[in-house]
Amino acid sequence: MFFKLKYSIISSMKAKTIKELGEFGLIDFIKKHNTKPKSYHNVYLDIGDDCFSFNPHTKSKYIVTTDILIENVHFKRQWATAKQIGQKAIEVNVSDIASMGNTKPLYAFISLGMPKNTPTKFIKELFNSIKSTCNKYGVHLSGGDTVGAKDITISVTLMGICYDKPISRTGAKNGDLIFVTGTFGDSCAGLEILSKDKKSLKNYEKELIKKHLVPQARLKEANLISQNIKITSMTDSSDGLFKSIELLTENKGAVINMENIPLSKNLIKYTNNNFDKIYSYALFGGEEFELVFTINKKDENKLKKFLPGATCIGTINNGKVTYLQNGKTKNVKYNGYKHF
Amino acid sequence: MFFKLKYSIISSMKAKTIKELGEFGLIDFIKKHNTKPKSYHNVYLDIGDDCFSFNPHTKSKYIVTTDILIENVHFKRQWATAKQIGQKAIEVNVSDIASMGNTKPLYAFISLGMPKNTPTKFIKELFNSIKSTCNKYGVHLSGGDTVGAKDITISVTLMGICYDKPISRTGAKNGDLIFVTGTFGDSCAGLEILSKDKKSLKNYEKELIKKHLVPQARLKEANLISQNIKITSMTDSSDGLFKSIELLTENKGAVINMENIPLSKNLIKYTNNNFDKIYSYALFGGEEFELVFTINKKDENKLKKFLPGATCIGTINNGKVTYLQNGKTKNVKYNGYKHF
Repeated sequence: MFFKLKYSIISSMKAKTIKELGEFGLIDFIKKHNTKPKSYHNVYLDIGDDCFSFNPHTKSKYIVTTDILIENVHFKRQWATAKQIGQKAIEVNVSDIASMGNTKPLYAFISLGMPKNTPTKFIKELFNSIKSTCNKYGVHLSGGDTVGAKDITISVTLMGICYDKPISRTGAKNGDLIFVTGTFGDSCAGLEILSKDKKSLKNYEKELIKKHLVPQARLKEANLISQNIKITSMTDSSDGLFKSIELLTENKGAVINMENIPLSKNLIKYTNNNFDKIYSYALFGGEEFELVFTINKKDENKLKKFLPGATCIGTINNGKVTYLQNGKTKNVKYNGYKHF
Repeated sequence: MFFKLKYSIISSMKAKTIKELGEFGLIDFIKKHNTKPKSYHNVYLDIGDDCFSFNPHTKSKYIVTTDILIENVHFKRQWATAKQIGQKAIEVNVSDIASMGNTKPLYAFISLGMPKNTPTKFIKELFNSIKSTCNKYGVHLSGGDTVGAKDITISVTLMGICYDKPISRTGAKNGDLIFVTGTFGDSCAGLEILSKDKKSLKNYEKELIKKHLVPQARLKEANLISQNIKITSMTDSSDGLFKSIELLTENKGAVINMENIPLSKNLIKYTNNNFDKIYSYALFGGEEFELVFTINKKDENKLKKFLPGATCIGTINNGKVTYLQNGKTKNVKYNGYKHF
């Protein structure tokens, strides 16, 4: 770990690049602006040593997730501000934590690779954004590593606690209803619009782009429903709705009513309301970070009371996964993002 | 997290590149060869979901460290085999855990970025090496992420437990003796030899290179001494001995007897026994991963009994850090590696 280094060098943030600022200047900046951990964090040895150390909450299960974001693969500096990149790096990990049920994210470990000529302004904004997004969720920046790299590389490991049993992806039973939060396809459409490098943007295009650049983890919603209803299985839609459905129906089946999949007005406008086009975004577009979960049918009314915005898109069965368009079977094949 | 994906696709390791193998083929490979966690791991939800989950050991403190290794910054594929790279990625993190005292590393989270044309053979060897090094220490590969990238990028977060109070860097007292394990400067000399791309290598050069490519964490030694002696402060020498001494003497001083710093015969040969040259490697060369620690003078004999190979290089005082060459003050200024 690198933030561990205890240097008291006062850095000048007037340095224009990360090379001028230097490693210790950067570490000093990171440490100086780190909020104190709250009492529930149980921190024994904070950022600034070879390891971060904490006393575990004995009644909770710990949950850990990790994601890596690389420039020109996951984001481009000409499309996203440092603030947006930092925010997204934390939100996507909080989303993984949220999908485990009744949780509290606690500690973040951030490794950062940066080219030597990275403007100090960019790094400052990135870290301020990482920290303010951490603060929003009560997460303590607990450690990390800073290194030179050709492309900006952000690796986040996020640790939290789950007050109840973590909700796995595999618990759905025959007859369970499949629910989702939010709308689908916007993030993917937003990315497509960005990639066109258009000079002027319509309002609905700006909103689709925003959904791509600044996703919001559904932590509050996940906590609310899992504190009050038995969620039989849950995941987030980070790799698209189609994938999420595959994950929740492993070794089982489902009927999905495509017309029930919630869509934004912006996406409908963007696709000129073309059914096939809409669903290529809504099913296969990734980076959406909505909750996809199942409940027993008897809990439907309870769910609607606690989370009126949730939408039922189908039912688990013992067969295979079938997509229906107004009652008729529709042939749907995976057509999503390939990492390699 | 990505290893979380539960795909049963049987991958053909005959695919020549990571692009041919595909993301799911890779995940399948990683999951298939992952050892089952041992009972002491307390795993509640293993690799294969949105998060990894464990029941904490209630009597232990948890310790976490993270490091990121990037191709052409931390390693070059023409200099190091996949096996060596994987091994080093784990050893450097175990070294951070070890420096906390009486510890047991438990869970590793590995994020991997790879170019599309990366040979499958390389990735297979890298993961096999990561896993066998994890196995050596009883570490369970618990999660990760795999993404496309321009350069091979390996981010490791390692979590463990500390049975006693973690040993920080700041506990040394006036009069404490400074001890080290191993020898210093070899890794740095090894890197220098590699960078010359020589056609034939002498035996001592090969050995210096080995110290650079395949460092060994001092976990056994750290456990042995901290179980039996009060270690007042400890760190590993990952950024060089000079830095380690700075870290242990923050707000205090020390007298360092340079001629006591342990050196290998290989380094002496490589530097033609030139004093200044030797100490530029031994003090400022990083990536050494030896233990640098302090004890009360009264524990000296006890230490020598448990760890006869440890060497006393100086004494903590209330002044400033002074380097002596055969009793005479030597002006030593930091001249180490700059990350940016």
